Amino acid sequence: MNNSSHLSTVYREKFALVADLYHLTMAYGFWKNDMQDRPSVFQLYFRRNPFGNPYAIATGLGLVVDYLQQLRFSVEDIHYLGSLNGADGLPLFEIGFLNYLQRLEFKCDVYAVPEGTAVFPNQPLIRVEGPLLQAQIIESALLNLVNFSTLIATKAARVVQAAQGDQILEFGLRRAQGLDGAITASRAAYIGGCDATSNLIAGKYYHIPVKGTHAHSWVMSYGNEAAAYRGFAKAMPNNCIFLVDTYDTINGIKNAIEIGKELRENGHSLLGIRLDSGDLSALSKTARKMLDEAGMTETAIVASDCLDENSISKLKKDNAPINIWGVGTELITGGTQAALGGVYKLAAIQDSKGTWEYRIKKSEDLYKMSNPGIHQVRRYFDSAGVPQADVLFEVSHLEPAKELIEMASGTVYPLPSSMNFEDLLIPVFKHGKLIYAQPDVHQVRERSLQQQAMMQHAKAHFVHGLDRYLYDLKQDFAQKS
Amino acid sequence: MNNSSHLSTVYREKFALVADLYHLTMAYGFWKNDMQDRPSVFQLYFRRNPFGNPYAIATGLGLVVDYLQQLRFSVEDIHYLGSLNGADGLPLFEIGFLNYLQRLEFKCDVYAVPEGTAVFPNQPLIRVEGPLLQAQIIESALLNLVNFSTLIATKAARVVQAAQGDQILEFGLRRAQGLDGAITASRAAYIGGCDATSNLIAGKYYHIPVKGTHAHSWVMSYGNEAAAYRGFAKAMPNNCIFLVDTYDTINGIKNAIEIGKELRENGHSLLGIRLDSGDLSALSKTARKMLDEAGMTETAIVASDCLDENSISKLKKDNAPINIWGVGTELITGGTQAALGGVYKLAAIQDSKGTWEYRIKKSEDLYKMSNPGIHQVRRYFDSAGVPQADVLFEVSHLEPAKELIEMASGTVYPLPSSMNFEDLLIPVFKHGKLIYAQPDVHQVRERSLQQQAMMQHAKAHFVHGLDRYLYDLKQDFAQKS
Repeated sequence: MNNSSHLSTVYREKFALVADLYHLTMAYGFWKNDMQDRPSVFQLYFRRNPFGNPYAIATGLGLVVDYLQQLRFSVEDIHYLGSLNGADGLPLFEIGFLNYLQRLEFKCDVYAVPEGTAVFPNQPLIRVEGPLLQAQIIESALLNLVNFSTLIATKAARVVQAAQGDQILEFGLRRAQGLDGAITASRAAYIGGCDATSNLIAGKYYHIPVKGTHAHSWVMSYGNEAAAYRGFAKAMPNNCIFLVDTYDTINGIKNAIEIGKELRENGHSLLGIRLDSGDLSALSKTARKMLDEAGMTETAIVASDCLDENSISKLKKDNAPINIWGVGTELITGGTQAALGGVYKLAAIQDSKGTWEYRIKKSEDLYKMSNPGIHQVRRYFDSAGVPQADVLFEVSHLEPAKELIEMASGTVYPLPSSMNFEDLLIPVFKHGKLIYAQPDVHQVRERSLQQQAMMQHAKAHFVHGLDRYLYDLKQDFAQKS
Repeated sequence: MNNSSHLSTVYREKFALVADLYHLTMAYGFWKNDMQDRPSVFQLYFRRNPFGNPYAIATGLGLVVDYLQQLRFSVEDIHYLGSLNGADGLPLFEIGFLNYLQRLEFKCDVYAVPEGTAVFPNQPLIRVEGPLLQAQIIESALLNLVNFSTLIATKAARVVQAAQGDQILEFGLRRAQGLDGAITASRAAYIGGCDATSNLIAGKYYHIPVKGTHAHSWVMSYGNEAAAYRGFAKAMPNNCIFLVDTYDTINGIKNAIEIGKELRENGHSLLGIRLDSGDLSALSKTARKMLDEAGMTETAIVASDCLDENSISKLKKDNAPINIWGVGTELITGGTQAALGGVYKLAAIQDSKGTWEYRIKKSEDLYKMSNPGIHQVRRYFDSAGVPQADVLFEVSHLEPAKELIEMASGTVYPLPSSMNFEDLLIPVFKHGKLIYAQPDVHQVRERSLQQQAMMQHAKAHFVHGLDRYLYDLKQDFAQKS
């Protein structure tokens, strides 16, 4: 367990079949046409920021590294593929191809944006260079891992920002999409800036702090609320946060205060109460007043109940005296936006003579048309270290940018030549060998919080777009067919 | 691999830590207060049908069975729990409790609605009876597995019904929430009625048919569309479905027809073309005309591009001649509704003298208040086998219902005493031992399709509600306390 990915710890599977059938039929086609080793470049990027956020938090690379390191076709995988028939009822794949797959070793170069980085549409988060067949068959696994993690880390960043420094507890396990959907999302939510999770298995794998209170069932098991709180206090006198809305919230707060006084008499204190329904603004104000009047000014108010960044913002504006926010469904799934639409596109391929050819996916809309070429993202900073611009370059023309063109509007921004820069895509695999020290989730979370603060600071004037050379290249491609 | 769940095949994990921290702190509290073995009943149900569908397709039991059979705290789990500290910096759990957990064996009785059954709000999908601590700690895993699977199976049923008998291919892997989120959703989508998946790992575990075409990258790797189709045809002459929108759709259809003719000359035929962007209605009509004029009346038109039940319905109304529908993101995540809000509530507990006491979670809204007691769902049929009503009973008063009360409206419906009935909750575990033969996903899919047809037939007059005894009991509970 390397504490940067749970995949190889949790799964027995070697993952090679985490692919769509068409990846294997295309692989077969490449092999049949002797194109399997043609040097190629694929790039993974998204076209729109999730949730209308000004940026996304790139996340998932830790999982991708683990996946690529484990990538093998097992004997069972080969047997399964051998059992598939085509529309004619005959085996879909020749034995020779299955033998080829079984011997396959991942030999690509991979460049990626480190996890926790603030990124923008059309910037590659991952660039894969290598034999066509190998670079192709990893598409769906890469997209699955990066799309979901990036979505949830970005959602978490929004929730964390809405809470203005209050603690955010991720409570989503029961509403997550599958067991691993929960673990992956707990990881991403923590990276996005959440302080803790309720999910023990995510806590175990990643050493994410775990937090929680108790359920309605604790109170219901006693039938009597005061007796239930007293029973909890007896078992865990230093860890009491009482859920107060099982029967009647105001009465629940009174009972909590009563047991809080008993705790105090015995040298302990009531850590908090939790509100889980009703008008959280009014109830938290009443609760704060009641607690303060009882001298329990240190007792925290925890709130939960279908919260998201919007409801938290509203409660903050309302000056609701809530100290800790438990966020579940919306955070663990993305809520009404449950997927990031990242894509993985062939960018370039060598012809049979070894010359690189750029490839694009056309679209009637120039904005949706993929950018031709092999890309690097260069982030420019002013002398105070505040980011000014992200420029997408073709790697053969990586030079101090004089101007960038914002793609959607076509606006041209001049860039002073003296600025510092950082290239976002860094080497991760060389010829299939891992050459990158993947940080653990705590380090990634630190980076994510720094990037969020940096982008908050840069906000007003930050721009992203294409280097002039790449822009002109795209215009050329759009005019040709 | 039993072909009814992938969990124990895919995961190394024994799952006991698929729980929220508060389940373990409550467990500790029960143990400290000597309540751990108090006989209790928990019920899992949802309050609202997903997607505004008239019913939901209960799914996930196969996974729950697998989870419960594997349920054990491993040595690593115990070490992890032993490493957790409370707010006072001291260990959260005593050694005695950790030893107790390590020896814990699941001993509950479990009743459940078979997978593939059409179900309604407030009907228990699972009822767990047994020692309080054991029945409590499985909450989040059960909710996670049932909420997500039921959500996706219901979404799939909607998509399948919209397509009016056309084939539905589930294409969601790349947009799914985690690797297992994809496998679980592919399983549920198949149960809901989809015909195939693109996801090879789901195909391998469940023998779900796998289908696919090729990606834009196939065409882009050649640069020339006709050459790309020809290359594919050379490799797999009997399995050609050409994606036609990489550069220009109409030109793509022309190229596909050209290669289709070459296939025909060599004794093969073009199985289909795929449209993946643009005006699918207009393009499919044009494509059909062009294919028919070329004598390719048997060549199918496959459509994809962010489809869901609404866009499919619209295209069907428009008489778009699409034969096969590839549905991805919306199907694999639920789209704008990414979670089913199922809950798991304590329904009854024995007092220290062994008398059963009903327990409820109160709410200001009578409709949201949980129903008191231990429940069975009885489905009544007319003599032709058409379902007439689902009645929620308290198990101590299971008798031929004379009337049911619809909860939301309070309307009373009389039921003739002569009707046949079926009890939906059936025994699955007895004293922790599996006594139910979980059907494989193909059998579950059959049941789901039968139930959908049955509910389609029953639609106009079907009602669901509470038995008179239970209704009166709820009124009593609402007035007390």
